[in-house]
Order: sequence, then structure tokens, then C-alpha cells
Amino acid sequence: MAAPTNPRELAHPTRAEIRLEAVLHALSDPQRLRIVREVAEMEGEEIACSRVGLPVSKSTLTHHFRVLRESGVLQQVYRGTAKMNRLRREDLDALFPGLLDGVLRAAEAQAVRCAP
Amino acid sequence: MAAPTNPRELAHPTRAEIRLEAVLHALSDPQRLRIVREVAEMEGEEIACSRVGLPVSKSTLTHHFRVLRESGVLQQVYRGTAKMNRLRREDLDALFPGLLDGVLRAAEAQAVRCAP
Repeated sequence: MAAPTNPRELAHPTRAEIRLEAVLHALSDPQRLRIVREVAEMEGEEIACSRVGLPVSKSTLTHHFRVLRESGVLQQVYRGTAKMNRLRREDLDALFPGLLDGVLRAAEAQAVRCAP
Repeated sequence: MAAPTNPRELAHPTRAEIRLEAVLHALSDPQRLRIVREVAEMEGEEIACSRVGLPVSKSTLTHHFRVLRESGVLQQVYRGTAKMNRLRREDLDALFPGLLDGVLRAAEAQAVRCAP
């Protein structure tokens, strides 16, 4: 993952650099899993980090988005002052067919099972 | 996960206690992923920890098996002096249909892609 020279370009792994272990690690945190579910729900659209409704500090949120970007789960781009996010579904489905949907379905199943 | 009173009984989460995040975390380590692939290849049989061909110390191996057991991925039982392992496929498939197979297929795809 080459560091971009333009500070407004964010570092992403290429498709070939994405590792299953890093993707699973990124998804193994409850808050990051919730971010991914929210982004997946709006699939096809870009979502601002600030639109994700997590009760955490801005720096924690930034950290979680960075882990998701650096593992190859999310693509992030600046639009003005906002960082916009979308799922890298095409890359993930090409590398690991069915994995993303399997995790999203599992997260949904758990949310239903554990709902109060 | 109640601690067993018999030291030869190993603590396992019940099916209801298994959390997706813990399963994904357990699978997010390359060595643990390899253990799970090896156990999955012999599915239906119990496999001794010592049969898994990982170039790591015994204590590291024990640690990895413990993470896999405590997350609910593997069931471990003592048979004499050996700890025997099997996948908790029935529990995982019931909780998260398709997840385990999705991860195993993804690991296989990555192994093929990254083979020298």
C-alpha cells in the first residue's frame, strides 16, 4: 500500500493486496461491524463518516474507518471537508465470493437474536 | 462461559453465548485460520493439537487453540493426555448460516492466489 503524496488522497490496498485475515480482523470489532452494516444498507451511495450513528468520539470513529479502509473493506475519498465511504464490494466479491454477504447475514442474524 | 470445576474439562461457550465478533477475531489470525482449515479438512474426525503442522512453539499453538475454543469455533476434549479438536459446525451453521463455509472458501481462494 503506497503512501499517497497528496495528503487528501487516502492510502488503500490494491485488490491484490487485500488479505483475508485483515478483512476478518477489521470486521471482528462490534463498532466496525456496525459501520459496515450501515454503509452496506446504503449500497451504491457514498456515506459520510459523520452520518454513521455510533456513540463514540470522533477520533475513535476515525480510527475505525481507517482500519476498514486499510484492510480493503471500505473506499474513502474526500469530498470537500467530508470523508465519504463506500463498500469495496466488487473487490471483496471477486477475491472472496460470498464472504461479505455471509458476514452481513451473520451480523443481521445476531442482531435479531440478541435484540432485547 | 462457566469455568469447569474438573480441570480436565475445558471451558466452552454455549451455542447462545457464541458471538460473531469473537468468531471473526479467532479467524483473523493466519495461523488460527490454518488450524481451522486443517481441522475442517478432517471433518467428522477429532484431530489432536499436535497433528496440526504449524511451525510454532507448543505454547503458541496452545494459545491459538484456546482462542478458537473460547470463541466457539472448536470443541476440545481430553482423550488421555491428548487434546482432541473438532469444528463446531452445527452450532456455527445454526447461528450464522454460510459463514464458516464462506471463510473456508475465502481462505482456500487466498491460498491458491498467493501460492508461490
